[in-house]
Amino acid sequence: MEIKVLKDILGANEQIAERNRQLLDSKGVFAVNLMSSPGAGKTSLILETIKGLKGKTRIGVIEGDVSSSIDAEIIGKEGVPVIQINTGGECHLDANMTYRALSNLPLQDIALLFIENVGNLICTAEFALGEHRKVLISSVPEGDDKPFKYPLMFHKADVVLINKIDLLPHLKFDVQAYSHAIRGINEKAEIFEISCATGQGMQQWLSWLQNQLRLR
Amino acid sequence: MEIKVLKDILGANEQIAERNRQLLDSKGVFAVNLMSSPGAGKTSLILETIKGLKGKTRIGVIEGDVSSSIDAEIIGKEGVPVIQINTGGECHLDANMTYRALSNLPLQDIALLFIENVGNLICTAEFALGEHRKVLISSVPEGDDKPFKYPLMFHKADVVLINKIDLLPHLKFDVQAYSHAIRGINEKAEIFEISCATGQGMQQWLSWLQNQLRLR
Repeated sequence: MEIKVLKDILGANEQIAERNRQLLDSKGVFAVNLMSSPGAGKTSLILETIKGLKGKTRIGVIEGDVSSSIDAEIIGKEGVPVIQINTGGECHLDANMTYRALSNLPLQDIALLFIENVGNLICTAEFALGEHRKVLISSVPEGDDKPFKYPLMFHKADVVLINKIDLLPHLKFDVQAYSHAIRGINEKAEIFEISCATGQGMQQWLSWLQNQLRLR
Repeated sequence: MEIKVLKDILGANEQIAERNRQLLDSKGVFAVNLMSSPGAGKTSLILETIKGLKGKTRIGVIEGDVSSSIDAEIIGKEGVPVIQINTGGECHLDANMTYRALSNLPLQDIALLFIENVGNLICTAEFALGEHRKVLISSVPEGDDKPFKYPLMFHKADVVLINKIDLLPHLKFDVQAYSHAIRGINEKAEIFEISCATGQGMQQWLSWLQNQLRLR
């Protein structure tokens, strides 16, 4: 019974996600669903990407959180269109929440849309939002065992960013073993090592993004 | 409809949790529900606590993860009774999963039971397991805005551990503002600053635990 309910929910979600994708395509918007644990650096990545692509790409942002509008306020200061979704208690965004946010954004002015999901490595991976790419930000302080513990998320990601590599000297984290573990779950994901704090590796990420926009 | 279903689930969970609590009490076991984001240091805290209380307290551990038995294997090496729950896809432990684990542990040999929940700051807070105390491990790299974003978790915690304080020199994290934010949501929680890596602050945590065991 419970499984049936879950299938119905996911099936209905897929339909709305497909409608979102069509809406985004009709407006020429490329959408990235940004997922991570709490505090791995989703908002910092968006901020650094806005700065890095200033004058090159029109960016818009949907901020997803259980509570608060802290992130939307931070992003709003950069002068890009942003809307905050508060899920109330839900541990992930879904396609319907995303649809309501899309209806309140000036899509004609946006080429690249970041949808910052709720900080959660589990349920966020199950719910399509209508995005074109799923990007996972992992971070060095979380430890290098995460692909084994959260396999669905690592399996579904188109890109895995390893953030906070500036902290490598202070922590036990084997980048090679980590990349190898990701490869065991996901043969195709792009893997970039970055630091939003120092800017290291950001150019690779920005180039990848610009390439995606060009190839559309 | 959806809310009705959720209420039923939480109501049924509470009943099983209460039964778990009675079972634990009848065996003289004090149970701690340990919650955090992925990689904040739950397993490290258990390891350091086992070492710190060696010869003083009989410890047992339930390990909760979506997938893998990495943590149970690490804990097992310390020679304490441990059982792994794999939730399959569920983002939190519930009372029923806990009950099955309790049935497979030698409760008569355990005075202090750690139940390491799934790495998740949201849904884990909603499901009682039958524990006597809820302990939240937050960590410095996650950033000091988390109480605003995950208020239910911070509201429900009996103890908030601020872990990885050895990384403070390398990160922007205002301990005072963070503690203040916790206080705004939760007047009573004990707050300890610790580092499982260096051992800093661990004595305070161990003393608190031993006090709880004495006061039962």
